Amino acid sequence: MSELHFTVGVIGLGLIGGSMALDLKRRGFAGKTLGVEKDQVAAEAARTIGLVDEVTDFEDCVRRSDIIVVAVPVGTAVTMVTKVLDMFGDFSTSLEMTGKAPEMGSLSFRPSEARGEISNGKIVIDVCSTKEQICNATKYHPMRKQFVSTHPMAGTEYSGPWAAQPGLFDGRACIFANAEESSPKALKTIEKMYDVLNMRPIYMEAAQHDVHTAYVSHISHVTSFALALTVLDKEKDEKHIFDLASGGFSSTVRLAKSNADMWVPILSQNHDNVLHVMDTYIEKMQEFRAAIADYDEDRIRELIAEANRIKKILR
Amino acid sequence: MSELHFTVGVIGLGLIGGSMALDLKRRGFAGKTLGVEKDQVAAEAARTIGLVDEVTDFEDCVRRSDIIVVAVPVGTAVTMVTKVLDMFGDFSTSLEMTGKAPEMGSLSFRPSEARGEISNGKIVIDVCSTKEQICNATKYHPMRKQFVSTHPMAGTEYSGPWAAQPGLFDGRACIFANAEESSPKALKTIEKMYDVLNMRPIYMEAAQHDVHTAYVSHISHVTSFALALTVLDKEKDEKHIFDLASGGFSSTVRLAKSNADMWVPILSQNHDNVLHVMDTYIEKMQEFRAAIADYDEDRIRELIAEANRIKKILR
Repeated sequence: MSELHFTVGVIGLGLIGGSMALDLKRRGFAGKTLGVEKDQVAAEAARTIGLVDEVTDFEDCVRRSDIIVVAVPVGTAVTMVTKVLDMFGDFSTSLEMTGKAPEMGSLSFRPSEARGEISNGKIVIDVCSTKEQICNATKYHPMRKQFVSTHPMAGTEYSGPWAAQPGLFDGRACIFANAEESSPKALKTIEKMYDVLNMRPIYMEAAQHDVHTAYVSHISHVTSFALALTVLDKEKDEKHIFDLASGGFSSTVRLAKSNADMWVPILSQNHDNVLHVMDTYIEKMQEFRAAIADYDEDRIRELIAEANRIKKILR
Repeated sequence: MSELHFTVGVIGLGLIGGSMALDLKRRGFAGKTLGVEKDQVAAEAARTIGLVDEVTDFEDCVRRSDIIVVAVPVGTAVTMVTKVLDMFGDFSTSLEMTGKAPEMGSLSFRPSEARGEISNGKIVIDVCSTKEQICNATKYHPMRKQFVSTHPMAGTEYSGPWAAQPGLFDGRACIFANAEESSPKALKTIEKMYDVLNMRPIYMEAAQHDVHTAYVSHISHVTSFALALTVLDKEKDEKHIFDLASGGFSSTVRLAKSNADMWVPILSQNHDNVLHVMDTYIEKMQEFRAAIADYDEDRIRELIAEANRIKKILR
């Protein structure tokens, strides 16, 4: 187990980053966890809750960690992963120049690798909900092999260090995007990391990932936002409308609580796929509308029966 | 407690009727429960599960019960409540003619009422998700005062006697529609019944109910059906798309499992309100679409922030 005692640095101590730090430490994969959080209130909360062993700054975190988890919104993540990879490059230069590693987490640093293909064994991963842009942006980076692009498909509608929870990832799927662009060793380490989080790995091309998540995640958020807007509009006149909200409504509208900082860049980055799915969705709504407007009960029944097929598919 | 030992007859032993029969018996409100179920497989299942003490036919059930719960889909319910009220009329005639009550549940039968305003004390209730049509259809029935129109706002996406469960109604809202059209005594009895089911009563006009439920229940079902149709369309090409379905998707699409027998007449009866809400909803989707199409991140952020207000309202 001692080989698993990595120093893990998490940049962005929100729901995903915070939950990951918690379980990686508790389950012995991380010997030490470092965290970076630019929001001062959130940083203080992460300290108080004890999400990581130490909250520090970006440079110190990258310098001292074996594995760096970039867990910030997707717009910022692209820039940040590149910046981390740039620093990996600097470390490797200094290694070659001086023959001596800068201070860093001890266990992943293997001197035998210091002048090999992988200069210092550090790995950076992202956990973004869109994969094509970040994979494209890093494709030709000289340190690309030390980057593993992942999307652990877990979460809740809440955000921030307050939302972090143990066991968040257990049993869920984790996508590895363009895994062949990472070094086999870096990939294996991160596969092990997600194995400790009890996630099942799925491998796919970044572009394919973005199409699929538009269908099974992004559109759900848009439909929930639209539902909330529709009902909130009505609420202006009818103060007591929510007395009637049942479990069905709550479940359908739940995702409308989701954070704009996270979702604006996702919808914007996955622009083409999201628009395509929205168009199909609006067509289906129009079909339903026409059937109801025509009192065409046979057609409504057909549409519902077809929709019911989701039963056979959902776990 | 003995005054609460009514004979309760439930017509339609599905999720709602079956769950109600279970708890009314377990909690001592019903001394005996009778059930009517036209589907033979469901009737046999209800017997096996023990949802009611006895499964019988419609006439026998109405004759022997103090309280008749009509728990069939809304299209059929209108006719059936009227038919029960017609039978109440017949009973009252036979009472007046012979001075002797037909066989019926003992405790609610109060001989002092036999020639009073309420001939035999029997009560019928419906539990429909739309209220205007059933209230209009029964408005001038000579036995109207013995009808209490309710909508217990509880349920799951499953249906049939197999879906019935104890505690289904605990803590949820129950609408009483046009309560002033029922006799105070009948109303009080049914209020007590829902109190035993741990529901909180809300009183409103039938028409107002139908507007509100279009917003907080019916539209949620339509958006879930449309979401299921959208994703199932895609699934034809991409067999593995559902590997990626996360908790958020499952929760948003959950209502798409709902039964056509129940939902076709709801959408059809609440036609005008549902179309109105769908139009608002489609507008909101179009606003979102335009913002995404224009890469207008400020506008997307505004829309999400506005939708987020749902947090303050949902329990």
